[in-house]
Amino acid sequence: MDVADLASRVAQGERRALARAITLVESAREDHRADAAALLAQLPKDRTALRIGLSGTPGVGKSTFIEMFGMMLIAKGLKVAVLAVDPSSARSGGSILGDKTRMDRLAREPHAFIRPSPSQSQLGGVARRSREAVALCEGAGFDVILIEAVGVGLSETVVSQICDLFLLLIAPAGGDELQGVKRGIMEMADMILVNKADGELKAAATRTCADYAGALRLLRKRPQDPDGFPTAIMVASLQETGADAAWDKMQALTEWRKSHGHFNRNRAAQAQYWFEETVRAALLARVATAGARAEMARLGHDVAQGHSDPAKAAHDMLRYLDSVPSKANVS
Amino acid sequence: MDVADLASRVAQGERRALARAITLVESAREDHRADAAALLAQLPKDRTALRIGLSGTPGVGKSTFIEMFGMMLIAKGLKVAVLAVDPSSARSGGSILGDKTRMDRLAREPHAFIRPSPSQSQLGGVARRSREAVALCEGAGFDVILIEAVGVGLSETVVSQICDLFLLLIAPAGGDELQGVKRGIMEMADMILVNKADGELKAAATRTCADYAGALRLLRKRPQDPDGFPTAIMVASLQETGADAAWDKMQALTEWRKSHGHFNRNRAAQAQYWFEETVRAALLARVATAGARAEMARLGHDVAQGHSDPAKAAHDMLRYLDSVPSKANVS
Repeated sequence: MDVADLASRVAQGERRALARAITLVESAREDHRADAAALLAQLPKDRTALRIGLSGTPGVGKSTFIEMFGMMLIAKGLKVAVLAVDPSSARSGGSILGDKTRMDRLAREPHAFIRPSPSQSQLGGVARRSREAVALCEGAGFDVILIEAVGVGLSETVVSQICDLFLLLIAPAGGDELQGVKRGIMEMADMILVNKADGELKAAATRTCADYAGALRLLRKRPQDPDGFPTAIMVASLQETGADAAWDKMQALTEWRKSHGHFNRNRAAQAQYWFEETVRAALLARVATAGARAEMARLGHDVAQGHSDPAKAAHDMLRYLDSVPSKANVS
Repeated sequence: MDVADLASRVAQGERRALARAITLVESAREDHRADAAALLAQLPKDRTALRIGLSGTPGVGKSTFIEMFGMMLIAKGLKVAVLAVDPSSARSGGSILGDKTRMDRLAREPHAFIRPSPSQSQLGGVARRSREAVALCEGAGFDVILIEAVGVGLSETVVSQICDLFLLLIAPAGGDELQGVKRGIMEMADMILVNKADGELKAAATRTCADYAGALRLLRKRPQDPDGFPTAIMVASLQETGADAAWDKMQALTEWRKSHGHFNRNRAAQAQYWFEETVRAALLARVATAGARAEMARLGHDVAQGHSDPAKAAHDMLRYLDSVPSKANVS
């Protein structure tokens, strides 16, 4: 493979080269890993996209919002990339972004790039690949990268360690209706967007927005938040209103963070996190082999049944690991 | 040491023996570790205390609440143990429970046992010791074990993996005043107790209680919660009211969870968690040596400064670890 040529075409913003580069970083083959590392090292270093993470329960209208929001950014002359992070896709068997027709207008725009999430593999791999895909989009000159957290479990945690801003999309709800926000997600949000604030749902959206604004006020203020953030605002995806106001807020927050050093500090902290996480993942890879996983499951079952205690079972597990040859690798 | 004798005296509920046993499990000496394991294995297995975790920002009145709540339980004929978990005590230099005079009435009760948190050491050690101290109190026949999360960072996570119920204590606040609830903590709560709901603060407490009840309704319902839980209620520590009502709610929740299998399932899941956590801690112990920590810090600094990328630095770190002899141990 001519890595230098691919790097040059990615840097020129060629979408087919970008797609091929992402396929390369998604590969687990060892020669592909070496090529991917060389490719990433050759990307331009002077480009900074705004990386926006987006989470929300199914049915809240994420695809519709992304299409509207992306079209608005493109109308402003910006280049927009959309990626999905789905550590659970091994189980669910596919990404919500797999069907590009859900964003058919955006998919046809020359200044947009939409990439479904990879369709397999364990969390560590998904995290690394997602991070590298974001770096590729940034190197390709995209101005805004939307990173959608898909599926259950840890996708939001992964996304929050990749993005500059984290958005939580919420549907309007009547009175006491439960919203089903995942525990821990509200805490990550820089902005909560109450979607579908149209027509008949307008009143419900207003109430929901006030509820979330109230809930956000109960949380401890973070150093990276200026006055008024985190905030909850309404957007109306179908009528294409509110996207401008939301973008203004995002820009204001980003400018404040940049001028106060938080933007770069966050990126530096994220890079350090990924370094430490990669080391930890490599050390923990000893229990990720099929044999070790089976032994962990067997011993864990004994502990859960009360047939063994945690310390004794851990001792047994470590003895098992010492009995098999270890091969640490960075995946 | 006569471990069998100590185990027997702990099982009879002797407080001095219990204190000595906890000191034993807190020790890092290898011979003490062996004695501690033998001691824990000899405890009665048929005793189940209710383990109640308690969190709240400083100044919210945790000590006053624990004293009032503990005295009420003792008046009902129950035996009460109070422990503190403080992974940060190495930095803060002491536990809020270190000064027993803050609970002087409870400290004088023959059916109460108060134990300050150990005054040093890293998280893994604190977690294991706290878990074992709870097991000792349970084996000593205490009916209720209050486990206070002290200090910053991960103390609540540790406590939530040890307790059956998790309480969050909150102070009344006026209007838009920020409460400073740690991000992620509200999500763990089974009950939020609005403290100091006395006299002049009564109206503010009522408002605060409604705010938190509203915020709890915005979170996804968990399988282990019956209708009406998690809930927010008011307690008035100084006037000693509300403790009975809070205890009634805790008992109702516990009974529901026991009758629906959630109580035992939670304990089984916690045991499995501690098994896996102990294995992970042992694997990660390779980067916990002084030399490895220094190397991690050096490489992490390079990454944060942009002089190295996460994957390259991780590769360097793993090469460093391969160059030093490893010694896995369960601490």
